[in-house]
Amino acid sequence: MDFLTELKIRAGVIDETLERYLPPPEVYPPVIHEAMRYSVFAGGKRLRPVLTMAAAEAAGGEPARVLPAACAIELIHTYSLIHDDLPAMDNDDFRRGKPTSHRVFGEAIAILAGDALLTLAFELMAKNFPDDPADSARVLRVVAEIAGAAGTRGMIGGQVADTLFADQEIDPATLEYIHRHKTGALYRAAVRSGAILAGAGDDVLRSLTEYAEYLGLAFQIKDDILDVEGDQARLGKPVGSDKRNKKATYPGLFGLDRAKEKARQAVAAAVRALKNFDRRADFLRELAKFVIARDF
Amino acid sequence: MDFLTELKIRAGVIDETLERYLPPPEVYPPVIHEAMRYSVFAGGKRLRPVLTMAAAEAAGGEPARVLPAACAIELIHTYSLIHDDLPAMDNDDFRRGKPTSHRVFGEAIAILAGDALLTLAFELMAKNFPDDPADSARVLRVVAEIAGAAGTRGMIGGQVADTLFADQEIDPATLEYIHRHKTGALYRAAVRSGAILAGAGDDVLRSLTEYAEYLGLAFQIKDDILDVEGDQARLGKPVGSDKRNKKATYPGLFGLDRAKEKARQAVAAAVRALKNFDRRADFLRELAKFVIARDF
Repeated sequence: MDFLTELKIRAGVIDETLERYLPPPEVYPPVIHEAMRYSVFAGGKRLRPVLTMAAAEAAGGEPARVLPAACAIELIHTYSLIHDDLPAMDNDDFRRGKPTSHRVFGEAIAILAGDALLTLAFELMAKNFPDDPADSARVLRVVAEIAGAAGTRGMIGGQVADTLFADQEIDPATLEYIHRHKTGALYRAAVRSGAILAGAGDDVLRSLTEYAEYLGLAFQIKDDILDVEGDQARLGKPVGSDKRNKKATYPGLFGLDRAKEKARQAVAAAVRALKNFDRRADFLRELAKFVIARDF
Repeated sequence: MDFLTELKIRAGVIDETLERYLPPPEVYPPVIHEAMRYSVFAGGKRLRPVLTMAAAEAAGGEPARVLPAACAIELIHTYSLIHDDLPAMDNDDFRRGKPTSHRVFGEAIAILAGDALLTLAFELMAKNFPDDPADSARVLRVVAEIAGAAGTRGMIGGQVADTLFADQEIDPATLEYIHRHKTGALYRAAVRSGAILAGAGDDVLRSLTEYAEYLGLAFQIKDDILDVEGDQARLGKPVGSDKRNKKATYPGLFGLDRAKEKARQAVAAAVRALKNFDRRADFLRELAKFVIARDF
């Protein structure tokens, strides 16, 4: 089976599980559950939860057992998009070709839908793992991992810096801080959570963490490149928005060619981090190549 | 020792613990940590975390052991106030006599500070309980309890309904739904979390839950009464704001005298729910009486 087909199948498993975890839209008050579902099912690639499952597999575990953590991370990713799009933040009207949450439901409900997805992420982890005392300690470790990555020393820290430096010239170190935190932290937690739940030892966890860090970097550089030379219809968003919003990007700081070279190097380093893993890490290897080959 | 002195001492323990749990203000990016601390240390009464500790005591446990859950609930309460005050929600400029978060730090940082407090609540529960497999299962149960109470079937559901019905006449059933969810759910979770962590059996948990539900009701009615006849200087907020904002309240629906009678009945029912408890429930009994006797 080719990689994209395999990715689609795995993303489908995530979608079905999210469908089960989200409250039905008719639960009172319906508007908040509609808003949560609107953003969760707005067409994400599900790369983070797929990574959690693939990391569990690479570490010798059972991918289906990590679904609560995988879905929690996707909900946290979705909440962060809703809040980032708000008028007080990036003030974006469209995402993935669809009107953003606050354009559809109004600002108050968009804020609350983000809050609700973040809250549900932790509720579903606490409720949906098997009720086994040996597992509980691992689940708590993963809750700490994910909350840490989503907090001010991770994703929120990156978002704050991005907000502070909006419309300003920034240096490469600040650009790296922003990306490492705003997007990198959650990729890292996605991979580490799968590995921890699978019972990975220190060496395996270290290698997978290295893989995740290079993967996150490659992903971000490729995102910046797509904003320069991507196809609007494939991406579901206007290209050139970084330039219009004066956002610091890798192509902006280094030029397009060197940015592409940096992305290739990051993917090679991600694959190299897996050199001691067997065939069960093949999906992670393919995923790293996909991250820069993709046109969406 | 009189009750208010005892309450102050217990609130002081909570303050010291929150001080330890919150990232130091100098951690990068400092503005988000300053914003989190600004709202957490803006002068709350700490009733919720004090309840968690007192419920653990009443159930025969060690109050200090439940501090992570107690503080998590206070952070969730604080985040909800920051987001409720936003221009897109209640658009309040002052709370407890101080400018609200978005007035001081701007809307973007206020939204992110709320997000960060909610995230930290779960992180600190996952990290600060003793690393004991027998405890881990209980901690996860409490994470589920608190997240459930904070989510769309609890606090957020109440806030959504409050937003939907703003400026509208509502019936007593809707008023009860809003209060039971917007404020009641977190009181309930505060009490239940302390009891669960103390290893309470079903009967003890049921009685304490009943106590919490009546206490939350009494608290809310008293809040509405204070908005009619309270002292602005003592309350740290303008009185009469419910009427100006056309908010549905107990005095508005039932008249001041019947509202006071309802509050007294709720306190009596809360105390009655503790009839099988020994002296270790005395603080909970005193707290119930304080809730309607208070002038702030």
